[in-house]
Amino acid sequence: MKVIPILAPIHEELERVERKMREVSRTEYEQMRAILDYLLSGGGKRLRPALVLLSNKFYPADADKVTSLAAAVETLHTATLVHDDLIDNALLRRGNSTLNALWNSAATVLTGDYLFARAAAFAAETESVCVISIFAQTLMTICSGELNQIFSSDGGQPTATAKEYYYQRIYSKTASLFAASAEAGALLGEASQTEAQVLRDYGYNLGMAFQIVDDILDFAGNEDDLGKPVGSDLRQGIITLPAIHFLEAHPGNETVTRVLSNRDVRENEVRAAVEAIKESGAIESSIAEAKSFAARSRDALSILPHNDYRQAMLDLADFVVERRK
Amino acid sequence: MKVIPILAPIHEELERVERKMREVSRTEYEQMRAILDYLLSGGGKRLRPALVLLSNKFYPADADKVTSLAAAVETLHTATLVHDDLIDNALLRRGNSTLNALWNSAATVLTGDYLFARAAAFAAETESVCVISIFAQTLMTICSGELNQIFSSDGGQPTATAKEYYYQRIYSKTASLFAASAEAGALLGEASQTEAQVLRDYGYNLGMAFQIVDDILDFAGNEDDLGKPVGSDLRQGIITLPAIHFLEAHPGNETVTRVLSNRDVRENEVRAAVEAIKESGAIESSIAEAKSFAARSRDALSILPHNDYRQAMLDLADFVVERRK
Repeated sequence: MKVIPILAPIHEELERVERKMREVSRTEYEQMRAILDYLLSGGGKRLRPALVLLSNKFYPADADKVTSLAAAVETLHTATLVHDDLIDNALLRRGNSTLNALWNSAATVLTGDYLFARAAAFAAETESVCVISIFAQTLMTICSGELNQIFSSDGGQPTATAKEYYYQRIYSKTASLFAASAEAGALLGEASQTEAQVLRDYGYNLGMAFQIVDDILDFAGNEDDLGKPVGSDLRQGIITLPAIHFLEAHPGNETVTRVLSNRDVRENEVRAAVEAIKESGAIESSIAEAKSFAARSRDALSILPHNDYRQAMLDLADFVVERRK
Repeated sequence: MKVIPILAPIHEELERVERKMREVSRTEYEQMRAILDYLLSGGGKRLRPALVLLSNKFYPADADKVTSLAAAVETLHTATLVHDDLIDNALLRRGNSTLNALWNSAATVLTGDYLFARAAAFAAETESVCVISIFAQTLMTICSGELNQIFSSDGGQPTATAKEYYYQRIYSKTASLFAASAEAGALLGEASQTEAQVLRDYGYNLGMAFQIVDDILDFAGNEDDLGKPVGSDLRQGIITLPAIHFLEAHPGNETVTRVLSNRDVRENEVRAAVEAIKESGAIESSIAEAKSFAARSRDALSILPHNDYRQAMLDLADFVVERRK
């Protein structure tokens, strides 16, 4: 496992989490084991387990339980990614569902479900009702956020509420699990509700910054770094912060609204919309918002004693904003 | 809510569970609320919550927690049904995935996930780590059972192990949640592990009988009662107990093996296979097996004090075998 240098202080603990997660793929079916191994060793940054581990350093608990909780949040995250792939395909309406793709959709649904179950079982190993409850609530938040996106599907009006709606969406999608990871890591130890809230704030703001940067990279990132073409959100009709900023400055701009409201757009139209947004200063103002969330996440840590773990958490706040992929 | 007469002694408790489950559909989105209401009021027999409630009568616990647990098992059951619909479509390879069906598959995956999350949140309300843990383990059993079915897909060899494989499958699919419901209902009270095991045995055997009868009805049921054509398992290449009994007596019979191994069969071939199985005595020998599981479920109750609740549980064992739908 490759750990980003910032996480060196918890390198050993992260290794334990990796070993724990390997329990997930212990099944008698070789094909299934291979898929699970692939999914769980997918080279993620392991930021969510890192938040559990770092938080817990301030309110230490039994090492096995901390490992289980960290494995639970990463397994839950992986489960949502598995189902997202299916959902994105469906929402993209690619329409190319061969028999084979249909068979795979059965395996995809079930593999995601199995990972949810595994995550719940890991969470139960903490034997902490309060941690388990946070875990279940977070899964509800994630799912209802996505359902809202489906059931309230409009073209993304550039109204005053577009940004509020966007913030709500990235909270459900990303910041809720970041917040829960940091909070639960503390509550598993002897943290009071107030102390845990501080770590929750840290996780929340870090997660918001992380997701804004993710959405920025979809415009301004390098396709080789990202492993996918830029503009994929626009192409799917998903309005993110750079497009919101752009449309605030250029209400009703046709190049961008056409791409957002029409799923069958040509590739050159997507490229033109991406370029228009990049040239408008919308990327810079979005980066400023991400930095402001990152600053708030650092501020939340001010009451914690200074040590290597707090430093790693501060560095993470810089990392999520500065990363290129 | 219509409750089967046998469950009259817990009618009021079941009403509480219904009210509790209505919490699930409290969302701001009308379309989603309608779907959830439809799914959760789907006229199920509420056998799983009934097992929780009946079991708990022998080891009483806080009424709110018992209600939460009963709502948890029924919500979990509903979640698996939602995903099953998607999976069955996929496995059937109907190949008719219109754009609309693809959009719906996104909503279906997410609605199922949301219900899993809700179920987990209800389970967490019991504040019983041991009950939550049973809950998570059962979800794992259900999912891995279905995954095994996909990853070990053969045509269903009529070997000595076909029945073992079938038993394993219906345990995962049905009996595991029946067993968990009865066990957890007891453990939520002051039952010892040994006492809870008795109720688990009851639930396990009841669930096995229930699923065998379900599989029999797919051959011998009335299409109006069932709301679906007979022979749907055969049509999907799924081998159940009547077909296993038939193939034990008539190894390699072409009428049946052709239907089982070939997905693109004509309707008259399915009908012919169903008739061959019905005329062979395989239905009767399958009923005998269901009755034997039902008898074992009744036997498990012998150590419990006689009262209306025990009587309802005994009657349930008859009901699951005698039902026509």
